[in-house]
Amino acid sequence: MTARPTSRRGLFRAAGLGAVAGLVPAAARAAEPALRGTGDLGLVVERATGSLLLVETTGRSVLARIEGLGDMSHASLVFDRTERFAFVFGRDGGLTKVDLLTASIVKRVVQGGNAIGGAISDDGRLVAVSNYTPGGVRVFDAETLEMVADVPALDRRGAPSKTVGLVDLPFRTFAWSLLDGDEIWIGDFADPRAPKLTKHPDIGRLPYDGVATSDGRWYVAGLFGEDALTRLDLWTAGAKPEKVLTGYGKGEQPLPVYKMPHMEGWGAAGDLLLIPAVGRHEVLAVDRDTFREVGRIPVHGQPVFCVARPDGRQVWVNYAHPKNDTVEVIDVPSLKVVHRFVPGPAVLHLEFTPRGHEVWISVRDRDRIDVHETRTFAKIAEIAAKSPSGIFFTPRAHRLGV
Amino acid sequence: MTARPTSRRGLFRAAGLGAVAGLVPAAARAAEPALRGTGDLGLVVERATGSLLLVETTGRSVLARIEGLGDMSHASLVFDRTERFAFVFGRDGGLTKVDLLTASIVKRVVQGGNAIGGAISDDGRLVAVSNYTPGGVRVFDAETLEMVADVPALDRRGAPSKTVGLVDLPFRTFAWSLLDGDEIWIGDFADPRAPKLTKHPDIGRLPYDGVATSDGRWYVAGLFGEDALTRLDLWTAGAKPEKVLTGYGKGEQPLPVYKMPHMEGWGAAGDLLLIPAVGRHEVLAVDRDTFREVGRIPVHGQPVFCVARPDGRQVWVNYAHPKNDTVEVIDVPSLKVVHRFVPGPAVLHLEFTPRGHEVWISVRDRDRIDVHETRTFAKIAEIAAKSPSGIFFTPRAHRLGV
Ligand code: DHE
Ligand code: DHE
Repeated sequence: MTARPTSRRGLFRAAGLGAVAGLVPAAARAAEPALRGTGDLGLVVERATGSLLLVETTGRSVLARIEGLGDMSHASLVFDRTERFAFVFGRDGGLTKVDLLTASIVKRVVQGGNAIGGAISDDGRLVAVSNYTPGGVRVFDAETLEMVADVPALDRRGAPSKTVGLVDLPFRTFAWSLLDGDEIWIGDFADPRAPKLTKHPDIGRLPYDGVATSDGRWYVAGLFGEDALTRLDLWTAGAKPEKVLTGYGKGEQPLPVYKMPHMEGWGAAGDLLLIPAVGRHEVLAVDRDTFREVGRIPVHGQPVFCVARPDGRQVWVNYAHPKNDTVEVIDVPSLKVVHRFVPGPAVLHLEFTPRGHEVWISVRDRDRIDVHETRTFAKIAEIAAKSPSGIFFTPRAHRLGV
Repeated sequence: MTARPTSRRGLFRAAGLGAVAGLVPAAARAAEPALRGTGDLGLVVERATGSLLLVETTGRSVLARIEGLGDMSHASLVFDRTERFAFVFGRDGGLTKVDLLTASIVKRVVQGGNAIGGAISDDGRLVAVSNYTPGGVRVFDAETLEMVADVPALDRRGAPSKTVGLVDLPFRTFAWSLLDGDEIWIGDFADPRAPKLTKHPDIGRLPYDGVATSDGRWYVAGLFGEDALTRLDLWTAGAKPEKVLTGYGKGEQPLPVYKMPHMEGWGAAGDLLLIPAVGRHEVLAVDRDTFREVGRIPVHGQPVFCVARPDGRQVWVNYAHPKNDTVEVIDVPSLKVVHRFVPGPAVLHLEFTPRGHEVWISVRDRDRIDVHETRTFAKIAEIAAKSPSGIFFTPRAHRLGV
């Protein structure tokens, strides 16, 4: 076996296989893009420099750096269904459309003052952004970035709200939560000029994030103001939000919360969801159907991301400051931590290759991405990146509820 | 909303949006390929003419026809992790590597006498083919199509066997069944020149197909010679195959079997698997964990494919001759048929867009693919194809157990 597909199919032939890539050669950005598939591409957010690193996961190399994205200190992004374009949601309210094949910015608009995330519709036509400032949700034409809908988040008392936990649902529909308004809204944008909104008030205090389960059945909001989560059944007409896991921290001494746990990445561990507990050194194992707690796993620190390997057999966990130099691996069948290692200071995010054989981990304060094999846990590559945070691979384009 | 991404991003600018595409313009095949993402591409097997139709699902159009693939009367294919290349397994033992971006054949080898299917490893380096003639499994370098392993399927008595139900498992591993040998084999090809084989004998009479559940936990073989299925736990070291659903047709008058049901497409309907019953006008609903029957759904004919929409909320079913002009849709929460329609004679296969908003259906004897919206069931496009059978979209590249 001497097959090294990337060396022949590489977009810019820029960086070596699996080696520390170092700076992207200046020539790389100017090169003529070669024909290539887009199924193994990814983007890494470089949070301090307003840039993205374009990577490929077959040969584990850097293809290019894309600059000029504004404030990327907490950026996230989604891919369109062709896997050619990414839509980047910047902290400064910037919405940037990036072309992965030419490694360039197609278009950039500043659509709000402070954005926290977004989603793309299943048909690839609509991109929705949730805003802290001015609040509400704005929907854009994916082709042109023209705004096609502006939905302020005025709660039942008429007060404006920050929005969080924006996810895509089937059929040009999005769901999101009103952080200050304590509501969950579902917006059907089949006709984006006349969206149909369904509003669920009084869902619990201060929803700070939300996810949909990978089957699109449940929308789940994390609550900052209560010791519970709220879930909404999206398959049953007329269903009301219900609180679940109420009092999951009750009776114990809560620790100061260093960082809210993130909800992305749950949902695929067989019958279980593995959920970071708020303000505790614990991961909760929850039955996917009933949302009853079936176990607690003591862990190294306050978990930030609990990401299930795509087959659900392992969950990898990173932690909040001051324990954020460490990663642990939970074996799902036994609900035990089976591996712990210390990549270095400020491990911010992790992303699996689509069938789960490898995982990429951003180590911000070492300016590095580490790639590990998930069977042996061995580190197999290091990739230089400037203050890397979020890592996003193109197969996300095809997932529900991201 | 006037965004029509395909019209600008189309590979060959060959066919109109959503219209009956008609014949592919001759110019199309010669045109210079434009840059495009590969996440929304697909291939349709044209079973009578040894050809493949290259399609895209955003604008629902034909991009090109690729000819010269040999006997495609029962062909299937897999995509590499870049989503640029497909590996096509022909009935004549041909293994053909196709480039979707140039719409051309990269390489073709005749690797056996009669092949029934294949799979690709998670790292994209190895393609495995299961053969009726000469039997056994052969493994090829995905880059060069050079054979790197030849594993004859000699059963415990030393007799050669046809192989079926070949699937990929994590970490360069494949599983398959010995049709004549009544065995399941797991092959770890981490070092393809020295594969590690685990053999499970006496799994039940005449396994005719196999699948892995989407989490990669269970390998399930359908039995032709017994009224049961066999499943193997791939997560538990030393696990033995166990028979499940034993006697699921017992006590009733079996009908003549017109066609063996296919096992591809199961596995994502929440907690349930919806399985075509052999020789009956029924679909079985089975608990995903225990494999106990939890319900039976009376249907129009003998089911061939029961394909779950990616979110698992619906299962679409086609039928064996003489009832193969009809498709039914089962609503999973209620286990009821909620829609039936008649596309035309010889409905052979169906494939969902990755987030499930649309479904493509091949209607062989009308030389046509129909595209339906899955929310309204409405037909939204027709695409001309010559005797179409299997439909394969590139996001399959990222699924486990295909
Ligand atoms: C609501 C929300 C989302 C979901 C967006 C969506 O739906 O698309 C999100 C996504 C994210 C995502 C995208 C996750 C994904 O897998 O899609 C990442 C990588 C991320 C890395 C961080 N987040 Fe995030 N994050 C918050 C909120 C959120 N972060 C906060 O309120 C918080 C605690 C404080 C803040 O500074 O905003 C916060 C701090 C962090 C970090 O400190 C992290 C670890 C590193 C960093 O660089 O900011 N957040
Ligand atoms: C074992 C097997 C596989 C799995 C391959 C793999 O693991 O990759 C398979 C896949 C397939 C796939 C790929 C399914 C997928 O979703 O991956 C398709 C479309 C398919 C359409 C048909 N098959 Fe298939 N098929 C058989 C066996 C199989 N078919 C038969 O034994 C049978 C009954 C008789 C025969 O002629 O071989 C048979 C007839 C048919 C048809 O009549 C179908 C409906 C139409 C046709 O054109 O042949 N078979």
